[in-house]
Amino acid sequence: MARIVMKFGGTSVADVEKIKNVARRVKTEVDAGNQVAVVVSAMSGKTNELVGWAQEVSPMYDAREYDVIVSSGEQVTVGLLAMALQSMDVAARSWLGWQIPLKTDGAHAKARIKEIDTTELDKRLNGGEVVCVAGFQGIAPDNRITTLGRGGSDTSAVALAAALKADRCDIYTDVEGVYTTDPRIVPKARKIDKITYEEMLELASLGAKVLQTRSVEMAMNHRVRVQVRSTFSEAEGTLVVDEDEIVEQEVVSGIAYSRDEAKITLVKVADKPGIAASIFSPLADANINVDMIVQNVSEDGKSTDMTFTVPRGEFQRALQVIEKNKAHIAYQELLSTSDVTKVSIIGVGMRSHVGVARKMFETLAEKGINIQVISTSEIKVSVLIAEEYTELAVRALHTAYGLDAD
Amino acid sequence: MARIVMKFGGTSVADVEKIKNVARRVKTEVDAGNQVAVVVSAMSGKTNELVGWAQEVSPMYDAREYDVIVSSGEQVTVGLLAMALQSMDVAARSWLGWQIPLKTDGAHAKARIKEIDTTELDKRLNGGEVVCVAGFQGIAPDNRITTLGRGGSDTSAVALAAALKADRCDIYTDVEGVYTTDPRIVPKARKIDKITYEEMLELASLGAKVLQTRSVEMAMNHRVRVQVRSTFSEAEGTLVVDEDEIVEQEVVSGIAYSRDEAKITLVKVADKPGIAASIFSPLADANINVDMIVQNVSEDGKSTDMTFTVPRGEFQRALQVIEKNKAHIAYQELLSTSDVTKVSIIGVGMRSHVGVARKMFETLAEKGINIQVISTSEIKVSVLIAEEYTELAVRALHTAYGLDAD
Repeated sequence: MARIVMKFGGTSVADVEKIKNVARRVKTEVDAGNQVAVVVSAMSGKTNELVGWAQEVSPMYDAREYDVIVSSGEQVTVGLLAMALQSMDVAARSWLGWQIPLKTDGAHAKARIKEIDTTELDKRLNGGEVVCVAGFQGIAPDNRITTLGRGGSDTSAVALAAALKADRCDIYTDVEGVYTTDPRIVPKARKIDKITYEEMLELASLGAKVLQTRSVEMAMNHRVRVQVRSTFSEAEGTLVVDEDEIVEQEVVSGIAYSRDEAKITLVKVADKPGIAASIFSPLADANINVDMIVQNVSEDGKSTDMTFTVPRGEFQRALQVIEKNKAHIAYQELLSTSDVTKVSIIGVGMRSHVGVARKMFETLAEKGINIQVISTSEIKVSVLIAEEYTELAVRALHTAYGLDAD
Repeated sequence: MARIVMKFGGTSVADVEKIKNVARRVKTEVDAGNQVAVVVSAMSGKTNELVGWAQEVSPMYDAREYDVIVSSGEQVTVGLLAMALQSMDVAARSWLGWQIPLKTDGAHAKARIKEIDTTELDKRLNGGEVVCVAGFQGIAPDNRITTLGRGGSDTSAVALAAALKADRCDIYTDVEGVYTTDPRIVPKARKIDKITYEEMLELASLGAKVLQTRSVEMAMNHRVRVQVRSTFSEAEGTLVVDEDEIVEQEVVSGIAYSRDEAKITLVKVADKPGIAASIFSPLADANINVDMIVQNVSEDGKSTDMTFTVPRGEFQRALQVIEKNKAHIAYQELLSTSDVTKVSIIGVGMRSHVGVARKMFETLAEKGINIQVISTSEIKVSVLIAEEYTELAVRALHTAYGLDAD
């Protein structure tokens, strides 16, 4: 007997038939003698519809009211799931964030979980009842509903698994697991059997939408065994685990790419202490997330070029901030483009292997792809390239690192 | 300055534009210096959709889960309304049933309000904030969401008006008020300026869908001044008040009809004590609501015919109950039809006037309409007629009692 948390995303609960299917999968685990807590998202498309209404009413909406509105989606699916389980003679009831209570801070629309009271849930689980929990939602100190930010149901599930000391947390979605890269552009992409938290974190933060970044962080911090698998198949999924659980580690586990990039270059800024602060402090103040930064070696010892990337959604705002601070920063020219893609290779194995980055650069050079910016971390190398080369680059790297399926 | 409760039904909050319109009407009252609590229903169609899903999952659903699901509709509109008010610089926040708290009994899906804690709402109203309350919902003693039954938002509004000691409760809907009869079949129907609680109660219970019956009872018990008016026009509506507020009382205030009737006749049952109980006790046990009952005078002193009506939705079930008890009741023959309509004249004035019922019978006779069953109360006379005569009968009575508009 194990205690497990099962989480089903929006496509898995998109309509009543699909919710019944979810109930059948839950029943299978119950029949196998397991204690089960289920976390559900809203029906796919529902949260977007609710957010759309909120924006239509007022683009500058009150986040507390936003949370009242958007949390309703999970309220519907959790009730329907509990009903579906009952109709299959599985004891079950629904739990909303405020009923558990799942306590968060007061940062509405992007709240962080503070504490999950498991007294009642523990009792129910031990009594053989399936605990159906509305994902994405909690309650703030002032007794108002909070939500955890988009994709927050993953975080709900992992946090619940940690609080309930669950043996594992199964994240059911519409793909069969985590792939070596996007199968839509690389047909030879392979499903990964086991991946480390660190790698998953990089993949998630690079936009591989299988798991919300924060949920991976939380799983890593609490050592929750997470499995990503498909609601619509019986196939084994991808296990996200500690590095020491993985016997044979690939040097590079996956290739990620993100089109959500825009590049800004400040030509001929003074090469002196404080110049980086004069550029990036105003951007930080404007809550703009700067990603890759490269500062060229100064040629004349007096001036240099500074290049960095921002998310596309913040591109125009970033340019405005820079232009407003032109006098202070004192650059000669401002160059910018959103015609770029960030391509990354990820693998904990690269820590102990040399020449991993070089292979990336050589592979891209062979295809005639120019690298505009490079950034590296311990387990990742990212390059910025012209957007039109995206597919070519990802396919070439996938082959070069031996990731292609047979 | 007055303290008012405004309630808006589903058609008044059917989309974002309509919710903004509601916010403008609320702002008008606020600008006039009034303290305002607003109660909203779900967007029209939404509750039906949610109920449909619940039934699709399981026809024998758990009413506690049903309440979790269907209460979400009002959660959405109350959040959107609070946002819309804020965007017009009106201080406002949403309140869900459990947040107020609006305490009910534990009869899920048809809960009754036990107590409304007005501490926080009073404070907010006195501070000039508009209090936006999700209609139709409350919280049970076990901390689970309850709903008040279909149309329950009217009851929420009236109960809130009573608890907050509001000066009036305005029920905004998609018609301009209460009419002397259904304007769809009588073009000369007139809007009634003032109507008594008692009359309104009869109209509501006869299916005039302007106000939920229970809300009228509650308004009567707590002497809440209710006004029914249109969200989409500035016209005065209908005031539901105490009898002594109405100076010139019509003898008959309105003509109602209900097609939701089915007639059952038991031919030749024994004319002896206990026979009525033998028929109606099993029906009551089956939770079937018997309406009109008529027992003919016994011709031979030994047997009689018993006729009664039930709602059409319970017709087949009622027949089954009777047939199952055939041996015990000992009737000779069972006759039944759903081809009937109940037509009623209503007016508190008939208490002090003679000949009111006679005029009804004569009017119908003149048109060649046969009366099958008659039942009367202090302020109402109802007759059962063949369904095909419905429009003819209602129009003739409307004219006979001088209700036609000029």
